[in-house]
Amino acid sequence: MSETLFATLQQLLGAAHVQTSAQAAHYLTDKQGRYTGHVIAAVHPANTDEVAAVVRACAALSAPIVVQGGNTGLMAGATPDASGRSVLLLLDRMNRVRNVDTDNDTLTVEAGCILQNVQDVARDADRLFPLSLGAEGSCTLGGNLGTNAGGTGVLRYGNTRELTLGLEVVTAEGEIWHGLRGLRKDNTGYDLRDLYIGSEGTLGIITAATLKLFPLPKAQATALLAFDELAQAVAFLSHARAGFGASLTAFELLSADCLALLRDQFPQGPQPFKTANQPWFALIELSDNHGENHAREAFEHVLGEAFEQQLLSDALIAESLAQSDALWLLRENMSEAQKRAGQNMKHDISVPISQVVAFVAHTDALLQQHFPGVRHFTFGHLGDGNLHYNVAHPLDSTVQAHMAHYAQLSALVHDSAHAHGGSISAEHGIGQRKVGLLGRYKSAVELDLMRRIKQALDPNNLLNPGKVLEVQP
Amino acid sequence: MSETLFATLQQLLGAAHVQTSAQAAHYLTDKQGRYTGHVIAAVHPANTDEVAAVVRACAALSAPIVVQGGNTGLMAGATPDASGRSVLLLLDRMNRVRNVDTDNDTLTVEAGCILQNVQDVARDADRLFPLSLGAEGSCTLGGNLGTNAGGTGVLRYGNTRELTLGLEVVTAEGEIWHGLRGLRKDNTGYDLRDLYIGSEGTLGIITAATLKLFPLPKAQATALLAFDELAQAVAFLSHARAGFGASLTAFELLSADCLALLRDQFPQGPQPFKTANQPWFALIELSDNHGENHAREAFEHVLGEAFEQQLLSDALIAESLAQSDALWLLRENMSEAQKRAGQNMKHDISVPISQVVAFVAHTDALLQQHFPGVRHFTFGHLGDGNLHYNVAHPLDSTVQAHMAHYAQLSALVHDSAHAHGGSISAEHGIGQRKVGLLGRYKSAVELDLMRRIKQALDPNNLLNPGKVLEVQP
Repeated sequence: MSETLFATLQQLLGAAHVQTSAQAAHYLTDKQGRYTGHVIAAVHPANTDEVAAVVRACAALSAPIVVQGGNTGLMAGATPDASGRSVLLLLDRMNRVRNVDTDNDTLTVEAGCILQNVQDVARDADRLFPLSLGAEGSCTLGGNLGTNAGGTGVLRYGNTRELTLGLEVVTAEGEIWHGLRGLRKDNTGYDLRDLYIGSEGTLGIITAATLKLFPLPKAQATALLAFDELAQAVAFLSHARAGFGASLTAFELLSADCLALLRDQFPQGPQPFKTANQPWFALIELSDNHGENHAREAFEHVLGEAFEQQLLSDALIAESLAQSDALWLLRENMSEAQKRAGQNMKHDISVPISQVVAFVAHTDALLQQHFPGVRHFTFGHLGDGNLHYNVAHPLDSTVQAHMAHYAQLSALVHDSAHAHGGSISAEHGIGQRKVGLLGRYKSAVELDLMRRIKQALDPNNLLNPGKVLEVQP
Repeated sequence: MSETLFATLQQLLGAAHVQTSAQAAHYLTDKQGRYTGHVIAAVHPANTDEVAAVVRACAALSAPIVVQGGNTGLMAGATPDASGRSVLLLLDRMNRVRNVDTDNDTLTVEAGCILQNVQDVARDADRLFPLSLGAEGSCTLGGNLGTNAGGTGVLRYGNTRELTLGLEVVTAEGEIWHGLRGLRKDNTGYDLRDLYIGSEGTLGIITAATLKLFPLPKAQATALLAFDELAQAVAFLSHARAGFGASLTAFELLSADCLALLRDQFPQGPQPFKTANQPWFALIELSDNHGENHAREAFEHVLGEAFEQQLLSDALIAESLAQSDALWLLRENMSEAQKRAGQNMKHDISVPISQVVAFVAHTDALLQQHFPGVRHFTFGHLGDGNLHYNVAHPLDSTVQAHMAHYAQLSALVHDSAHAHGGSISAEHGIGQRKVGLLGRYKSAVELDLMRRIKQALDPNNLLNPGKVLEVQP
């Protein structure tokens, strides 16, 4: 069967665009090196018709199809299983910009485009495409859509879902849904678009999207703020939302321990608030459509009010683009700083913003009780209630001993997020890493609804099986 | 069967909350008086458990369930059919505010709440709930969610879909999906929320929602602008988006003929630009989070630039709240002005903003060719590409003769919207009035996907049958 399919795929795409499992080895292990799969073939179709033909060929022989973008996901959602029965679909040749429409403020691009390239195309048209995340230099738009990626711009612009107006999708039957609409309003039936977004390739294969563009800000202002307690940071966020409105485009939390870690791991890097004793910091950004002076005035006005109302303990305002970049570097280096310091347990949780303080206090205390001495490196997108609640080994223990407790410790964190009205995966998705957890946090009613939708759109469970949802054969 | 069900419903809800078809007569005809239905009973459950019990009782006897909010929809989507087999579900007793969370900027309310009351609750909490439309004094949040209502705030804040974080839904089996999450980020599976929103009660019954709140603007500025041609209005819109950013909260188009109609029908009403000879006007609104002076300065700066760049021919800036209200009254009176002038053919279309000029030119010419002398009253939400493209009878003919051509004329308008990449229902939904049109404008692939979802979530076609989608029994 697999030889027949391999030959068919070569006929459809040309031999140069079909690889064996061995040739495709570097696609077959997830970014964090936790899972490795095997495939019948890895294929690189040139266009949507070829994607549809590949799907039909696979469906005819009941071969599962796994689609992969930049392989930057953290949940191994794009890594095939080890059965060797699947075909891996790579859209790297589908990276065309199909349309830029500045009057409509939309951009239509293929799913294989690297996110940074999409940002650049928008900028060249004097527009902003605001999706921004650490992996933007290598992740693809298709992956962003499949996982409904978040990042640092969600506070103002929303997740990938909110940035998308239309989709082109290949169905499990290898048909093409031409849904590339550039409309702000269209109430003509069920919202297929949002069903495909975030479904991690399990309901259909997204091949192109029509995205929203925004005016490029004329100026930005950045500051690192210090808070005496987390509750003060939350209160300041409310104040800043009221004062800045939609101009508040980032609100990234960092604990004092995160700043200390950055100093340790990047001794040549920026060293703000080196001697401060506040426990919490936030990097905030204001985007202004008037200009430098206006941005600065608005910034100083709102920060001034906050000082008066004791919503703020200290502030370091960037005086230049270089200083602003240096402050952002802190946030951007967090992931690497943790990696250098040794493996730790990462949790991508969200709770209502009003529950952040209670969640952190409760969970920190709980972990100290069960795992005395573990170290908390909590940071993330406070403006979205999304914390990267990461936990490192006690200094009197080892990484290895610590990581042995992963399941047990993570269950406490996830239970706590859930108990605070939150989510166990704010922006990273489910993939295969968290698929076993859904039964614990979703009701039977919700899981059943999800299974019915999966069954309706992919009745033979051929699209990225084993991801998002455990499907009984 | 119907007597058994009636008795069961009385037992479940109490006799006072179950009406006969005759008692419920005023719910059974749609707002525009085009359709009248009959039912086994009209029921008024007190809470979600009672809704679920009603659904189970109906499902057990295969009685269809039609849910209705304020009965303000224009597509008769909430009017039962004439078979007398259905049960009408009214959520007027479910109008509680369950939670106001200002730190999280969310509000949880039941589906029977009148939209204006939701706005008021938000304002009392010093927040804005920005959904705003003509029927806000009588439409309900449940109806807004069911139809993904749009209105005048979409340009800045999005449709009802974009304003909703979580839902509580009763399924076709009478189970409850507890999806009232107040999270900005939650990537844990398929997006059930957006599937229910806009499904017009055909996939499930929305009983409550968690909604996004925004800071109340500190000041607003309003102006009526005059343009030499429609293309100039579109170019000005681009300019205004860049200059105002997210502060641009309304951009409502009115043709000169619309202003003349308003003068004729409301001779005591505001009379701006009485002697102007520009063909197009726009009512724009800036919302500012700094204050009056700041709003005025920003407004005058951007309008000044527009004059210099000849993106604007004349401007009337409101100097007081009273003047601002008077300008808004023009837009708000449009519907009534048309009603007073006699019945006309309404079309709620959208196209990409870049296609608005071509759409209007092409469609106007086409109609004059096929129906010489018809009069165009085109207005709407230019900022969303959403036009109410309304067509009145030629002055040398009668309303009656004109309305006899409805199907033929509307087909030309809808075909043209479709050919310009647009939608035949931007914000009013499909209901029963447009259900027969979908086959003409949706691909077989899309209709099949919609049918599969309907089949998955309502396999016995008991939820609002005959609306949105024609389902083969």
